[in-house]
Amino acid sequence: MSPSRYFAIFFLAFFVITEVKSTNPFSYATVQQCRSIENGEFYYNVAELKCSPCGDNQETTADGLSCKCTSYFKMTQNQGGPDIQCTVCPPGQRATLDGWNCIACDINQLTGECQACPEGQIGVEYTITRELLSNRTCMPCSSTSQPDGSALECGRCPQSYIAESLTGSCDCPTISPANVDVCFPASIILPNPSSGAFNVPYSVLDQDQLTSWFFQENFVEVLGTCQNYRNFTGCQTWANLCTMVLTRTDQQACQDYRNYVNTITETVNGIDEWKADMPWLYYQSGEADMDLLSRDIPTIFTFDRSSDDSKLRLVVAQYTQTGQFLGIVPVTGGKLQFCKDTEEKMDAAYSFATTYRSSCVLPSRDFWDEYETVFFDMYMITEDEFRNSVLYPVPVLNSNFGADNQGDNQLLWQLTRRFYLVDNVSGKVNADDPASALRYASSIEIRVSLREGTSAGLIYPPYMRLTYSELSRETDYTEETSRTVSFAVIYSQDQSSAFQAMSICIGVFCALFLLYAMAKTNAWRRRAGLIVIDIASMFKFILFACGLIADAFLIVTVGASLYWTLFFKRQDKVYLLLPTSGQASSFNIYVIVAFVLKLLDVIHLLVIQCRTDIFLIDWERSRGRMVQANSASNTKASVAPISAWRSFFVANEWNELQEMRRSNPVLQIMAVLFFLEVVGLKNLTTTDPQSSLNPTNDEYIGEYSDILRFGMASGLYILVGVIQWLFYTLIYERFVEDVLRNFVDLCSMANISVFVLSQNNYGFYIHGRSVHGFADTNMKEIKTQFKREEDNLVGQRGLEPNTDQQTFEMLLSSTFRERYNSIVLPLRAPGAARGAGAGNNDDKISEAYVSLNKFLSTFIDHGMSDVDYVVKDKLLFEKILDMEFYDPTDKGFFFNDDGHAFQKAIFYGHEATLLVFELLLFCIVDLIFTNYVLAGAITYITSMIIIKIRDSFGRSNVARKTLVDERFLI
Amino acid sequence: MSPSRYFAIFFLAFFVITEVKSTNPFSYATVQQCRSIENGEFYYNVAELKCSPCGDNQETTADGLSCKCTSYFKMTQNQGGPDIQCTVCPPGQRATLDGWNCIACDINQLTGECQACPEGQIGVEYTITRELLSNRTCMPCSSTSQPDGSALECGRCPQSYIAESLTGSCDCPTISPANVDVCFPASIILPNPSSGAFNVPYSVLDQDQLTSWFFQENFVEVLGTCQNYRNFTGCQTWANLCTMVLTRTDQQACQDYRNYVNTITETVNGIDEWKADMPWLYYQSGEADMDLLSRDIPTIFTFDRSSDDSKLRLVVAQYTQTGQFLGIVPVTGGKLQFCKDTEEKMDAAYSFATTYRSSCVLPSRDFWDEYETVFFDMYMITEDEFRNSVLYPVPVLNSNFGADNQGDNQLLWQLTRRFYLVDNVSGKVNADDPASALRYASSIEIRVSLREGTSAGLIYPPYMRLTYSELSRETDYTEETSRTVSFAVIYSQDQSSAFQAMSICIGVFCALFLLYAMAKTNAWRRRAGLIVIDIASMFKFILFACGLIADAFLIVTVGASLYWTLFFKRQDKVYLLLPTSGQASSFNIYVIVAFVLKLLDVIHLLVIQCRTDIFLIDWERSRGRMVQANSASNTKASVAPISAWRSFFVANEWNELQEMRRSNPVLQIMAVLFFLEVVGLKNLTTTDPQSSLNPTNDEYIGEYSDILRFGMASGLYILVGVIQWLFYTLIYERFVEDVLRNFVDLCSMANISVFVLSQNNYGFYIHGRSVHGFADTNMKEIKTQFKREEDNLVGQRGLEPNTDQQTFEMLLSSTFRERYNSIVLPLRAPGAARGAGAGNNDDKISEAYVSLNKFLSTFIDHGMSDVDYVVKDKLLFEKILDMEFYDPTDKGFFFNDDGHAFQKAIFYGHEATLLVFELLLFCIVDLIFTNYVLAGAITYITSMIIIKIRDSFGRSNVARKTLVDERFLI
Repeated sequence: MSPSRYFAIFFLAFFVITEVKSTNPFSYATVQQCRSIENGEFYYNVAELKCSPCGDNQETTADGLSCKCTSYFKMTQNQGGPDIQCTVCPPGQRATLDGWNCIACDINQLTGECQACPEGQIGVEYTITRELLSNRTCMPCSSTSQPDGSALECGRCPQSYIAESLTGSCDCPTISPANVDVCFPASIILPNPSSGAFNVPYSVLDQDQLTSWFFQENFVEVLGTCQNYRNFTGCQTWANLCTMVLTRTDQQACQDYRNYVNTITETVNGIDEWKADMPWLYYQSGEADMDLLSRDIPTIFTFDRSSDDSKLRLVVAQYTQTGQFLGIVPVTGGKLQFCKDTEEKMDAAYSFATTYRSSCVLPSRDFWDEYETVFFDMYMITEDEFRNSVLYPVPVLNSNFGADNQGDNQLLWQLTRRFYLVDNVSGKVNADDPASALRYASSIEIRVSLREGTSAGLIYPPYMRLTYSELSRETDYTEETSRTVSFAVIYSQDQSSAFQAMSICIGVFCALFLLYAMAKTNAWRRRAGLIVIDIASMFKFILFACGLIADAFLIVTVGASLYWTLFFKRQDKVYLLLPTSGQASSFNIYVIVAFVLKLLDVIHLLVIQCRTDIFLIDWERSRGRMVQANSASNTKASVAPISAWRSFFVANEWNELQEMRRSNPVLQIMAVLFFLEVVGLKNLTTTDPQSSLNPTNDEYIGEYSDILRFGMASGLYILVGVIQWLFYTLIYERFVEDVLRNFVDLCSMANISVFVLSQNNYGFYIHGRSVHGFADTNMKEIKTQFKREEDNLVGQRGLEPNTDQQTFEMLLSSTFRERYNSIVLPLRAPGAARGAGAGNNDDKISEAYVSLNKFLSTFIDHGMSDVDYVVKDKLLFEKILDMEFYDPTDKGFFFNDDGHAFQKAIFYGHEATLLVFELLLFCIVDLIFTNYVLAGAITYITSMIIIKIRDSFGRSNVARKTLVDERFLI
Repeated sequence: MSPSRYFAIFFLAFFVITEVKSTNPFSYATVQQCRSIENGEFYYNVAELKCSPCGDNQETTADGLSCKCTSYFKMTQNQGGPDIQCTVCPPGQRATLDGWNCIACDINQLTGECQACPEGQIGVEYTITRELLSNRTCMPCSSTSQPDGSALECGRCPQSYIAESLTGSCDCPTISPANVDVCFPASIILPNPSSGAFNVPYSVLDQDQLTSWFFQENFVEVLGTCQNYRNFTGCQTWANLCTMVLTRTDQQACQDYRNYVNTITETVNGIDEWKADMPWLYYQSGEADMDLLSRDIPTIFTFDRSSDDSKLRLVVAQYTQTGQFLGIVPVTGGKLQFCKDTEEKMDAAYSFATTYRSSCVLPSRDFWDEYETVFFDMYMITEDEFRNSVLYPVPVLNSNFGADNQGDNQLLWQLTRRFYLVDNVSGKVNADDPASALRYASSIEIRVSLREGTSAGLIYPPYMRLTYSELSRETDYTEETSRTVSFAVIYSQDQSSAFQAMSICIGVFCALFLLYAMAKTNAWRRRAGLIVIDIASMFKFILFACGLIADAFLIVTVGASLYWTLFFKRQDKVYLLLPTSGQASSFNIYVIVAFVLKLLDVIHLLVIQCRTDIFLIDWERSRGRMVQANSASNTKASVAPISAWRSFFVANEWNELQEMRRSNPVLQIMAVLFFLEVVGLKNLTTTDPQSSLNPTNDEYIGEYSDILRFGMASGLYILVGVIQWLFYTLIYERFVEDVLRNFVDLCSMANISVFVLSQNNYGFYIHGRSVHGFADTNMKEIKTQFKREEDNLVGQRGLEPNTDQQTFEMLLSSTFRERYNSIVLPLRAPGAARGAGAGNNDDKISEAYVSLNKFLSTFIDHGMSDVDYVVKDKLLFEKILDMEFYDPTDKGFFFNDDGHAFQKAIFYGHEATLLVFELLLFCIVDLIFTNYVLAGAITYITSMIIIKIRDSFGRSNVARKTLVDERFLI
């Protein structure tokens, strides 16, 4: 007993036995079982569902549901119940066929029954007024009649016999071929059976064909009746025969048909190929492209569901295998669909612009047992100028017709008309056998293309692409074998111009952005202090270009996909279809390229930011010499140490700052997922015209469109990103917390300036010199300082007198950089930041630290004449292009900024790049897996990894550059 | 033109005009249209889909697809094509009925056609051997026959006429009621039509009933034939008549039926109520409960799909309205389902343990036009001991039978047998009119209950709950009206014992946990220094109890739901069914209660943590007096200030620490969503036995089960939580970063101890006294300190000599608290931490700060005899119960901890509470909205809000208590 069972017992407590009634299951019989009981005759009692015995001298009726008297007895009582009375007939007599009387007849001594009448005669028991005759008489039929199947009545023989007979009787003077029930005049040339005219090709069979009973039975007959008399069903049957051999012109049925039809000159319905009284089978060869580009369908299709024009109103004229007309019926209700579903879903196939696909696996046996062979001619209902319904023929492109029909060259196509779903008739070798082989339409595709140009809602003629497959009775009529069938309605539009426009846009953007990348490279070279264009510049140019080209691709793909997303579901007259997956492949490539380039851009950003030079300038001066409090002697006085904890604090905060993001990526992802999955916007990305956020299970829901999913996701991502940006910029930073401002404040309070060099000669400066002169003091004094500052008793914090400007962009002279480098050299030794370094190395480092501090503070104080700077405002153009026009050959420049230019040294200033990267990652993952939740999860993890990398490398960089131990950067 | 159109034009570029062929749409006709053309006779040309004119002297045939000669002409040529030759008949002759000959006859001068024969006679044109007679003769039928409908042949009259007739002819001696085709003996008592026997009740009609043509036609006849002769179809029809009046015993058809059946003693199939030859309509009254508790069905149902026993094999015996037997057929393939869908989905209804529901809206007209009236007797196929298929009758509970059948008291139920889906026959007032009113089965429910006890896979007899609704032709036969129909298969199991077990478990857990809550309250009282049990203690007890009872509810609900989740889909023999939504309501209540209590618990936690007393003890002593470096005089020497920046740093880090979580809630939610939505575990929460992670669209997917969703979500949440916990505890904290350890290190380096008082007399102490004596120094010296410590040149960091133990739990004496309170008083003044306070207040605060620092450092140094402490190890039991056994009346206790006991003062130590809260929130949201993504989003936002609250209040608390300005807590 499994543990779960113990658990179940544990959970189930008490069980009370109630007195219950017993109704045992009972065995039951079928009609067949009753009939097959050997000892005695039984009938099936429908009230009791079991076999009941017949009475004496009785036997079971044909339906098995009651009894009748045997032929030696006549019934004297039978009220449709179990009680039947039989009375024995006198000797030499037997019961009449209706069982109620006895009649004398020639008794066959072997069977004990009445003799059958000779050929051509009928057996008569009653007069025409139902008087019983004295004995059963055999009578010959009149000259124009013959006995019917049961040999009880005479029926008129077929008219062709009487007509061709010289005597007006049932005798045909010409010898009619076997199986043919028509008498032909001698003038007709009949096909020679030995020439293979009755053979139907089936490649699934060993011998590649079979001699069809249906062809033997009908081919000669319809040739005669159709050619001679234009017999309605005969001509239809002939067309069916040709359709059965896949309308292949090398088959005799089709050859003869074409030849005959070409002799007819009268056409009907204004169509050259459609001859009077004859079914239309072939379109003109070599004109398929023209037929399919015809502009004759006036219907303007719309998405307005209340209108009939929102549907593809296809109808089929149906004919049985022997040519009986079954009416013109709509294809709705799953007429052409093997895969059954709810009617609503099946009908969605004909809702205009709904890309519909269904496929399923059917047991092979069903093709024999479940389907009847029906032939279809397909038409589309449209309206003429008087709003009358008119028909437009829908051509069939039969892939099995030949290799040309499988290709894409419309000039070579041979379009045809008639088709069937299953043909389990032509494969019969004998009338009563099931088909040895059969064909079924394994793939049906109805293709509709929207007309080009501005003719909204108009289409080219739709056509049906059909593929038949074959099954052989021998191998495929088993329990196990099954076959896949598919049905699709595919809409297409010539999207080449749209994609061309996209290419052009990308080209234009790329060109512009490459120029901008060149400008950026130039600015970079100036900032890096490079004079010549070297390999590094080229490399940099490529990296800048990566980021910008990614933006170009993104702008164009988002623009295009938003166009489809916004307009596809909201069109009235249909002017816009979605690209098919083949057409959309270049779109996907654009997205992938954008992602790869953006990934390079992000790596570039990470590498640059994790290698930034940073130094904390401590303005604090020692407040004097220290005297031991308890010692009176002054001799041991040493310089009071300046506490390093302010530096630690500032370094710690900088470390925290550098991985901060301006927006919250988790909130971003959660919000996007919320709108897509919970609100249900993802339901608007299907390839059907429905635009409900919560489609019910009953509706047909098209497959997802890659482009719509991309458009919806990227649009939402950008929207949420912009809202977050607005919120953080306009509300959060103003009213709640501005982390950059807080950091600058902290620097001021700590009397520490931050000197960041992103590049050789370029960087940022946060002026943190305390207005109180010193900060390294106890809490009481700091409180006093706060108070003085609040009361405006001290100067302003700015670098220049009487200004508040504390943050600057710097472009420094190369001279400065050389001096800086020479001082900083010992600090960059490996392991410098680690306390574990070699002992005397530590001293060098500390010395270098002190001299760098001194050098930089002197520089800021304009204390050196050879390296100096001027404070300037940036020009508008400089701001926009993010570059500097002046060359800092002799003096450096400090540019006033807007208070947060130094964010460019940390993630905070590169939110757009990171957001775009995440957006692309989100969309790429969704493109591959078609799952927004997975995309969200992967994007989340990736953004966490990027932050961790930035955090980890940034921390050791800060530790190395500022000499603050990593233990303080927590 | 809309902007989108402009956009489209912009996107579409060139357009090349090709020469195209024109195939104009053509107008087409229907057979009816051809027939209704007024000038001339037209037939429908099936090849051309239009009307073609008939030749001269011709008229359209009945099917409208060809022509024939008018009755004045005989055909001489007709080969089934358009070419028909007509030859005029000689005067006084008309064409025979087959049209091929002319025959003389009495011509009706008005119509111009042959006279019809008088009543009882037939018209004869040919002899029995089909020789043409010279003229059409009228002949009387023989005595035992009468003319058939067309008056062309004689047929034997019904046997009852012949049998009852005195002469053996067609004359019935008794006067048979109108419409009845049976001759009854005078002995039979026939129902009196005036007594309303032919009335069928239809409440939808104004007069509440109608006189049914079908009853008039059949009631008397079947009464006679069934009672007299047990006529097979007659008895079935009688049962149908009773079924048509809803088997109501106040209707005469049923009354008579019951009376008659009760006179029969012979029973069949071992069932007392089933009388020989008669359909079984009624179960024994008052025994429904016993019938439905019978244990006679031997089938052991399983989830193994390959076995027949995984299906509910229901069959129906079908009968037409007039009693013809249509065979016993399975109900699969949507036999009983109005709502059509794919066969696979419809058949899923009979897959065992699949809770199946489907409903749809059908146009009311369909009930008249689409459905035929068929009567069903339902059986279940099971197997006897010899593995033969046997039948078990499935009773019908007809809600329309009476009020008792609508209730839940099985004792009052009247079970019946026969039912129908649509009855559009009984409502006919005339044979040819459509039904004035009809009934359809608007709701069908098949209910199966699993047997109690350990008999896995066995069921009680299933039954069918049926509700009929009525439609009236007058109001409901319109385009617009439609009706909802529903079909359901519902499985149930007596879950009372399971839910009882759950209640008991909850009771037991609650009792235990309440005891624990009392112990916790006691510990709290000791820690709070309370002596008596006051209101606060009671309140605290309730709050503790909240958290613990929530845990109890959670444990039980998760346990129970996991039991269902793990075992439901994996059972072999079916022993476990899901609770129905009614049964599960108490489960939902448990979850809601757990959530509400946990919410209180979290609020409690937030309030306590945001009010914690915290103080940073600065061990740094001034290193002496300060002499101005440039001044030689020693007179101005003042005590060197101790820098507050170390305190700022530690306070800042503590502030960051206090909102930190041990696990990452976003990762948690993302991982859970990943498994549920992407991996597809949510697909295992459906009420069907399928257990595929990616069900295809073709399969029937049951509705979601609340319990399974809860079980799956909570199980995954706990699993991911445990994995995160293991990862952080075993890997991350050891090898990457232990934030608590880092903080303790920082304290040591900063020479600052952290003194946290969570409660009056209880708290945590982090001993941060620097082993170097001072820390307020420059970077060089700090590096030297690091080096000395690494080289083991200094003592250990522990509070007690030669130990490493730096963190302690404290239980302090009330004396200590009093002293502490008296010092701390000025610090707690409002606005103390703000620099903006009143000026002289600041001085007081600073003084208090200094004296508190001094007091606490003296205390730690054992410097006061009246308030002192001893360091102890906690007993195992104390650790487990999280309480202290000793009373700190004279001395406080410092308990050695495991290095992170102080996490209890911050979120880090309460991860379990927060995780459980989020888990419950996640499940509650999903319970309400059945959407895991939404649940994830709301849980994420809530957890962010909780952290923000903790952050915001915690920050101002730290600022107030440690006197560090909030500007440093960034």
